[in-house]
Amino acid sequence: MDNPSLITVPVPLGDRAYDILVGRGLIASAGARIAALGARAAAIVTDEHVGPLYAHALAASLEAQGLRVSVTALAPGEATKSYAGLERVCDAVLAAKIERGDLVVALGGGVIGDLAGFAAAVVRRGVRFVQVPTTLLSQVDSSVGGKTGINSRHGKNLVGAFHQPSLVIADTALLDTLPIREMRAGYAEVAKYGLIDDERFFAWCEGNWSGIFAGSLARDKAVAQSCRAKAAVVVRDEHETGDRALLNLGHTFGHALEKITAYDSARLVHGEGVAIGLALAFRFSASLGLCPLADAERVEAHLKATGLPTRLSQVPGGCGTVDELLAAMAQDKKVKGGALTFILARGIGQSFIAPGIEAETVRRFLASEIDA
Amino acid sequence: MDNPSLITVPVPLGDRAYDILVGRGLIASAGARIAALGARAAAIVTDEHVGPLYAHALAASLEAQGLRVSVTALAPGEATKSYAGLERVCDAVLAAKIERGDLVVALGGGVIGDLAGFAAAVVRRGVRFVQVPTTLLSQVDSSVGGKTGINSRHGKNLVGAFHQPSLVIADTALLDTLPIREMRAGYAEVAKYGLIDDERFFAWCEGNWSGIFAGSLARDKAVAQSCRAKAAVVVRDEHETGDRALLNLGHTFGHALEKITAYDSARLVHGEGVAIGLALAFRFSASLGLCPLADAERVEAHLKATGLPTRLSQVPGGCGTVDELLAAMAQDKKVKGGALTFILARGIGQSFIAPGIEAETVRRFLASEIDA
Ligand SMILES: NC(=O)c1ccc[n+]([C@@H]2O[C@H](COP(=O)([O-])OP(=O)(O)OC[C@H]3O[C@@H](n4cnc5c(N)ncnc54)[C@H](O)[C@@H]3O)[C@@H](O)[C@H]2O)c1
Ligand SMILES: NC(=O)c1ccc[n+]([C@@H]2O[C@H](COP(=O)([O-])OP(=O)(O)OC[C@H]3O[C@@H](n4cnc5c(N)ncnc54)[C@H](O)[C@@H]3O)[C@@H](O)[C@H]2O)c1
Ligand SMILES: [Zn+2]
Ligand SMILES: [Zn+2]
Repeated sequence: MDNPSLITVPVPLGDRAYDILVGRGLIASAGARIAALGARAAAIVTDEHVGPLYAHALAASLEAQGLRVSVTALAPGEATKSYAGLERVCDAVLAAKIERGDLVVALGGGVIGDLAGFAAAVVRRGVRFVQVPTTLLSQVDSSVGGKTGINSRHGKNLVGAFHQPSLVIADTALLDTLPIREMRAGYAEVAKYGLIDDERFFAWCEGNWSGIFAGSLARDKAVAQSCRAKAAVVVRDEHETGDRALLNLGHTFGHALEKITAYDSARLVHGEGVAIGLALAFRFSASLGLCPLADAERVEAHLKATGLPTRLSQVPGGCGTVDELLAAMAQDKKVKGGALTFILARGIGQSFIAPGIEAETVRRFLASEIDA
Repeated sequence: MDNPSLITVPVPLGDRAYDILVGRGLIASAGARIAALGARAAAIVTDEHVGPLYAHALAASLEAQGLRVSVTALAPGEATKSYAGLERVCDAVLAAKIERGDLVVALGGGVIGDLAGFAAAVVRRGVRFVQVPTTLLSQVDSSVGGKTGINSRHGKNLVGAFHQPSLVIADTALLDTLPIREMRAGYAEVAKYGLIDDERFFAWCEGNWSGIFAGSLARDKAVAQSCRAKAAVVVRDEHETGDRALLNLGHTFGHALEKITAYDSARLVHGEGVAIGLALAFRFSASLGLCPLADAERVEAHLKATGLPTRLSQVPGGCGTVDELLAAMAQDKKVKGGALTFILARGIGQSFIAPGIEAETVRRFLASEIDA
């Protein structure tokens, strides 16, 4: 299992501790690493884009270790994170006779990771699972932290469980087949970690983003550093009662834009909403006199350089009216008792939780942005 | 909230500790007790038998404390413990705007308790819930221990979560409207606790069962003692990795009979299967020379006295062949690696886990029972 470029990021969660392995070409040794967890069977869950590309290699690597393997491929896309998808995956896992010592293996992006992780949380009241994330977003964000779930007609991710994986294998070579738009979307989350509390990392990203996109060693470093940043927050607040909220930098605006575009990924994917949201969060902070305007401009310039949108006017089909945006924000589950909570910043790498922001203040800011 | 007949059974599970309150007429003070948990809203989940009888009183008691209350009533019966039922309850709870500090209140038998408890476990990745069990079975068994879930096409209770309630309110007066057949079925579980490890309690049951059925103070005592017994096991083994299995006394046979009668409650309800299973477990133990035949006879005589079935020949529509019974047992999720695990007994109150029982031994015993 030697691998010169292997980076291990530990997630020290007591008896739920696990490792995130980051490196190019890890899928070849995934079988041995997963077998070392002691399972006799593995149910691979994937989607119909990823399955044809990588399921065979992963299954072969597991079978070479003597594991009994099944593969289930679901339709790609957010609509799969549904009750019907949950039933389908649970049935497949039960049909594969996965018992408490065995494993579910999620091979895919955040949709598959969230869905298969939730199924693992509830089949037989909990079986173990391994994440093999295949998008940049899932490698740096959704596969870390144990949040799993599906969408409800009342909103995204409203039904789910906290269920930590037993292992995360982030093979950065898998990203070579990722559509550029998905790569950019995941990159918005990478930049976010720098913006939250690590100005040095953001500066490094400014110099290295093209290597991350192209697949040099910078990609592995960026994934590992992002995982470290998220893991640190998760370890402080496993069940999201307090400052895990910092991870929502850019997301209050971003979620509102996703809602307004009806979660239609043809119009806006999550990371694009986040990119606009990050730019807005810094401009909002600047407009409140909290943060130098130069920092907001630096954030926007970098996101733009990678091809990400940063303005409400860039939402295909329009971003709705100020009132529509406000209403969408007020429905967000992070909103408590009517007052809006934002993540604002005093500068790059200096973000903080700002509860109790008045709707009127937000309204004025959004009006200026829509006109811009 | 004074109540002379109130019995409190604590379930000391660390930061998930809670109380089980047992007494006649508790529903009148349920609102105050639930409000004391600090919620602002409560979503009552019930079924269409129980709702018309008790939902109004419970809702009024909650509203009197200033809580916002919603009521959702589902079709009665095991078929409600499904993915569709889960979606329905989660949607209702989300529509009622239940947040993390609020409560789901399960008002009903084990079907509603298991389903609403599971919904509470997964809505917003976990909201609190209160059990108000309305059947004898749910007061003495399903509302204690935190096992929640739904059925899958692959078997019963195969999808779910461990989610402890914040409070259990067992109002024994609610059982006055319970059909006698459901009362008997729950009683099989009461007797089971004595048979597992409490000969004195079994002897007390032999003398007091008619008071339990009729609703004297003996009912409250039996419910409380059963809860104590189950809670003690749950506290030793919250996530069912070890000796919680003792609670399955009578259930390996019982589950097989439920499977063979296609979970058709017109033919056999769970407690009836358990009653036959308890009698079989003792006769099996006696046939293996582990337990005096007199004890097996005493078990059967008591169950018969209450009107419960104790013989395979009493299964309406027939119990199938020996091979069918064996196959049904081998599918049980408590079966590991092919060998059968039974709970056997050295006498009344002296049961133990017996792993690795040969199929041939079981076959011979069943053959003798089917002929009997
Ligand atoms: N659990 C969490 O903490 C968390 C955090 C952030 C986001 N999420 C969730 O993650 C989801 C989004 O994840 P995502 O952006 O990975 O989306 P996704 O899973 O839908 O993947 C995006 C697209 O890329 C395709 N794809 C995936 N890997 C590929 C590869 N290697 N090569 C080619 N194509 C590939 C997929 O088939 C899909 O079409 C959302 O549902 C979101 O709610 C969860
Ligand atoms: N979670 C656990 O640990 C656990 C343990 C044992 C059983 N269970 C589950 O419990 C379920 C069986 O529970 P149950 O036996 O309570 O069945 P149930 O919930 O179906 O109730 C039985 C019947 O009685 C009716 N009823 C309930 N209360 C009544 C009342 N007070 N007056 C009149 N009618 C009333 C119901 O509408 C239903 O028709 C099964 O699904 C089983 O898997 C769970
Ligand atoms: Zn995000
Ligand atoms: Zn039972």
